Amino acid sequence: VINAGKSQHNEDQACCEVVFVERRHSSRGRLPSREGSGELDGVRTMHRQGHDGEGAQRESVRKGFYFHYWALFDGHAGSGAAVMASKRLHLHICEQLRDLVDILQDPSPPPICLPHDARAGPAELSRVPLTEDNGEVPNDAVPRFHLEKAVSHESLVIGAIENAFKLMDDQIEQERVSQRLPGGCCALAAVYLMGKFYVANAGDSRAIIIRNGEIIPMSREFTPETERQRLQFLAFLRPELLGKEFTHLEFPRRIQPKELGKKMLYRDQNMNGWAYKKIEEDDLKFPLIYGEGKKARVMATIGVTRGLGDHDLKVFSSNIHIKPFLSCFPEVRVYDLTQYEHCPDDVLVLGTDGLWDVTNDEEVAGVVMEVLTSYEPNDPCRYTMVAQELVMRSRGVLKERGWRLANDKLGSGDDISVFVIPL
Amino acid sequence: VINAGKSQHNEDQACCEVVFVERRHSSRGRLPSREGSGELDGVRTMHRQGHDGEGAQRESVRKGFYFHYWALFDGHAGSGAAVMASKRLHLHICEQLRDLVDILQDPSPPPICLPHDARAGPAELSRVPLTEDNGEVPNDAVPRFHLEKAVSHESLVIGAIENAFKLMDDQIEQERVSQRLPGGCCALAAVYLMGKFYVANAGDSRAIIIRNGEIIPMSREFTPETERQRLQFLAFLRPELLGKEFTHLEFPRRIQPKELGKKMLYRDQNMNGWAYKKIEEDDLKFPLIYGEGKKARVMATIGVTRGLGDHDLKVFSSNIHIKPFLSCFPEVRVYDLTQYEHCPDDVLVLGTDGLWDVTNDEEVAGVVMEVLTSYEPNDPCRYTMVAQELVMRSRGVLKERGWRLANDKLGSGDDISVFVIPL
Repeated sequence: VINAGKSQHNEDQACCEVVFVERRHSSRGRLPSREGSGELDGVRTMHRQGHDGEGAQRESVRKGFYFHYWALFDGHAGSGAAVMASKRLHLHICEQLRDLVDILQDPSPPPICLPHDARAGPAELSRVPLTEDNGEVPNDAVPRFHLEKAVSHESLVIGAIENAFKLMDDQIEQERVSQRLPGGCCALAAVYLMGKFYVANAGDSRAIIIRNGEIIPMSREFTPETERQRLQFLAFLRPELLGKEFTHLEFPRRIQPKELGKKMLYRDQNMNGWAYKKIEEDDLKFPLIYGEGKKARVMATIGVTRGLGDHDLKVFSSNIHIKPFLSCFPEVRVYDLTQYEHCPDDVLVLGTDGLWDVTNDEEVAGVVMEVLTSYEPNDPCRYTMVAQELVMRSRGVLKERGWRLANDKLGSGDDISVFVIPL
Repeated sequence: VINAGKSQHNEDQACCEVVFVERRHSSRGRLPSREGSGELDGVRTMHRQGHDGEGAQRESVRKGFYFHYWALFDGHAGSGAAVMASKRLHLHICEQLRDLVDILQDPSPPPICLPHDARAGPAELSRVPLTEDNGEVPNDAVPRFHLEKAVSHESLVIGAIENAFKLMDDQIEQERVSQRLPGGCCALAAVYLMGKFYVANAGDSRAIIIRNGEIIPMSREFTPETERQRLQFLAFLRPELLGKEFTHLEFPRRIQPKELGKKMLYRDQNMNGWAYKKIEEDDLKFPLIYGEGKKARVMATIGVTRGLGDHDLKVFSSNIHIKPFLSCFPEVRVYDLTQYEHCPDDVLVLGTDGLWDVTNDEEVAGVVMEVLTSYEPNDPCRYTMVAQELVMRSRGVLKERGWRLANDKLGSGDDISVFVIPL
């Protein structure tokens, strides 16, 4: 359920798809790396492969697997980036997974190193021996480093999703002029693949699982406050990014020129606590991170620190770019559905900040329970009704003094989007 | 209980003190900042202050408060840094707190800004109004930034401890030649002040609280694995720190020159998952972070990423410094003793990695319970007996095949130090 009916258009966008990941055929010279072209060839017709057995030949016509996908995109400064991401991010994820089809379907650990030609199936992959003292390197040159790190299938999927976000961001950068994509968007995506949910979040949307009444956070928010130290660290190492207008130090309020020489509370990239420092000329600059809660901003401009787009975003009436401080990489959390028993009332809830600004985890869990119990367990529309109810309660009702919640507080003034996904 | 009796000397050091924080007198021009001199004047004789009332005059002869302090220092490459830190860190903490005596004893929120002359007591501090549109800045110039952030007393203590660690590190740097202090040390310090425990950790020591059988972690470990992304981020931004010998990328094992052009698993500063990349010339360099678990190293050299000292540490037979990748700043966690009821069996346990390498949280909690119940609740030596038992069990017993634990596994080969502190 997107949009709360308050306006004709909104900047939130959503996507829900079942995506087939087709094993890449004859990918000679093609690499599953970020350097790969932006072109998405997931729909390319498959060739039959010459060296397979007869049964495998028929299977290889369309060898691969499906993933289920839900995603929310909360746009800012226009809906362009959100619209594009909603149409393409799952294709980038698919593209990253195409090179992993054989590896993910093979129960043995992923190979650390692949041969030059990625056409080979897993049986043909040259497994690297556990010790590396078999090659040109003499035994005594690598005495301490003879073991290799185990890498799980799960961490390959996480890596694929992380790089898909990066490629999506690159594509927005490349097409932002031709496709008129100003602004950017937060992105929250849930991928269900081989028994596990992968929840990837870049921004201030939020996902929780409600299982048997228990709340399990599946994401955290990335804001100027939660990422303060990363941003201050970058500004400290690259002061030129601050354009002589900003200081990497944080102060609890603006400093006035007349306060020069007094002692003021501050904190830097190394500190979680506060201490006093003597105010110097440089401290009169505007702080890189400033404000509290929903009003916290990076360089007085943007309130989220991860997401897609924003390549042209600058500090108002200046030539200072914000993008270097933003990350397009998500944090990916994994929920293994096979590890738990689930009942029809167990759900994954994805919501943009329009939901979470006025409705907390416990209230969401309450609405989920309340609405689900009012429908038959096998009624397929019961989850949609929960999503709709969550949106409506966060929007509130239009009264003389604006949109009001049940408790008479102001409803969310933001776009509100919610997915409720049965586990 | 320090040292496990296995050798004549050890690199672990410990300190336990009750420290009086004396309000700084007439500190005109003196600042509670890192720029302050390394000199510790906590023992300086007090002058009486001229402007106080008669009762306050007598009190001001020795105005201040006490804190209780326990700390463990796990030295490496010699015990010099650990010995010095064990003798001075609490004095640096004291020094940082001296400027806060009046502020911490005043129940109202700490002032954001102090006047030029810090002699003034809290009543004389010029409290800054909540809005800043009272000065030379015109109203319309700061419309969005008129509120100040609330800063708690607790966060001032945290900031004081954080900066004390930095000053301790600076002192080791300054005196390392004259005092012969090669090497460095991890530092874990617990400060009890005004009803709260502040547990500050820089390194791979560990603190837990055991309350009513429940385990509450009071620190986390800082190792090449837990701090991989911070270190990779720094190396990515400052590649010159890698001296052309290392790559900021992580690989699951060393790459051999003959593997050029193949695809290898990797991850960079943005990734938690793994992906394949084509091996290029640059990837043949040694990875900045390499190895797993206790064998993980920064630039093949050091296994901890936070601590004091190590200013001269270089990569073996090279001129590449390690110190830029190490942080001397602790993470400080706070436990409010006034929020819970405590019984005589509730304790805070501090231990160096010699303990935790062979004894996990649950086993430590089991030993605590087992030993405490075998002594009377009012027997003051019962906590010492727990610490001794924890050390002895982690050391094991000398058999023909070396020091063995009760389960016949190898005992800890490291120094083992434990504090058991009743709550």
